Amino acid sequence: MAPTSETLTAERILEATEEVLRRHGPAKATVVDVARVLGVSHGSVYRHFRTKAVLREAVTKRWLDRTTAALSGVVTEDADPETRLRDWLAALFAAKRRKAGDDPELFATYQVLTVENGEAVSAHLADLTGQLARIIEDGVDADVFTAPDPEATARAVFHATGRFHDPGYAAAWQRHDIQTEFEAVVDLLVRGLRG
Amino acid sequence: MAPTSETLTAERILEATEEVLRRHGPAKATVVDVARVLGVSHGSVYRHFRTKAVLREAVTKRWLDRTTAALSGVVTEDADPETRLRDWLAALFAAKRRKAGDDPELFATYQVLTVENGEAVSAHLADLTGQLARIIEDGVDADVFTAPDPEATARAVFHATGRFHDPGYAAAWQRHDIQTEFEAVVDLLVRGLRG
Repeated sequence: MAPTSETLTAERILEATEEVLRRHGPAKATVVDVARVLGVSHGSVYRHFRTKAVLREAVTKRWLDRTTAALSGVVTEDADPETRLRDWLAALFAAKRRKAGDDPELFATYQVLTVENGEAVSAHLADLTGQLARIIEDGVDADVFTAPDPEATARAVFHATGRFHDPGYAAAWQRHDIQTEFEAVVDLLVRGLRG
Repeated sequence: MAPTSETLTAERILEATEEVLRRHGPAKATVVDVARVLGVSHGSVYRHFRTKAVLREAVTKRWLDRTTAALSGVVTEDADPETRLRDWLAALFAAKRRKAGDDPELFATYQVLTVENGEAVSAHLADLTGQLARIIEDGVDADVFTAPDPEATARAVFHATGRFHDPGYAAAWQRHDIQTEFEAVVDLLVRGLRG
């Protein structure tokens, strides 16, 4: 076996897959392209990812997990629950805007992939609302929030802020008044949580 | 002049235009098709609507205004502001679901037309948030809502409920838990307004 294939990890394959997707777009990218970038046979890629669909799902999950990982720090930061809630929503909005603005082609590619991989997206949304629920629970424990069902309230907060994280609104994120809109919605929701 | 043309009103032309759009789709519908449906010359149509673009904008505005008209009754209904706010949001959601569910082809057609006619859409959104602002102002006057800037708060409520009226979410409106999601968001917003 060639040395390149010995060091072939799932992570290296996923990195190469993202690069190939960025370059060729989701319609044209193939496993052969990925293998070529890595200098390995396509069989070596299939040893890690059984099918092209499995590989595409894994790369989608990796992309989504990057946001979840970036936000998990906010959940446990040393601040009161209201501050953490505001910080978490602001960090989510910032992460999405950055993804959409810094690399629009890769963002568009992942829009196609997320439609294909509904289960990965559902798991991702459950991860995110789970983080939100933890902050809301802490607020209930600290007697600053009222929420009989923190999980349901977390979903409501997530849905109510969709304009500021749902990729369908990416065009609106460039508008000059979007930050004011974001703060108005978050203020109203925080008041609702306190109420 | 033929008798048909004597009775040719703008409203009759718009009705026929909607019918033609439904039948041929927004890409293929022409002014000649509209004239044929009405049994008049295309010159007669142009006498009312100077260009095809003007006609398409007018038919889009008419479609959007139907929703505004249906909701205006809720603004002035004889009930407390919280009930009117809940009724208004429920009526908006119901109107959008009905439009999307009852006639998906016409709904898809109007999605194309609204992208073309940004100004008509902006005016429509201003009409809707204006209605919401009136209800919120009444709540502030009755001392049941707190909102230093009812117009800004109305926009925040509108944005926070986008999942339940933005056509981009039409697919989610078929899901079994959508009504529960709607109520959770509205409850949280109403608590925020009270707070």
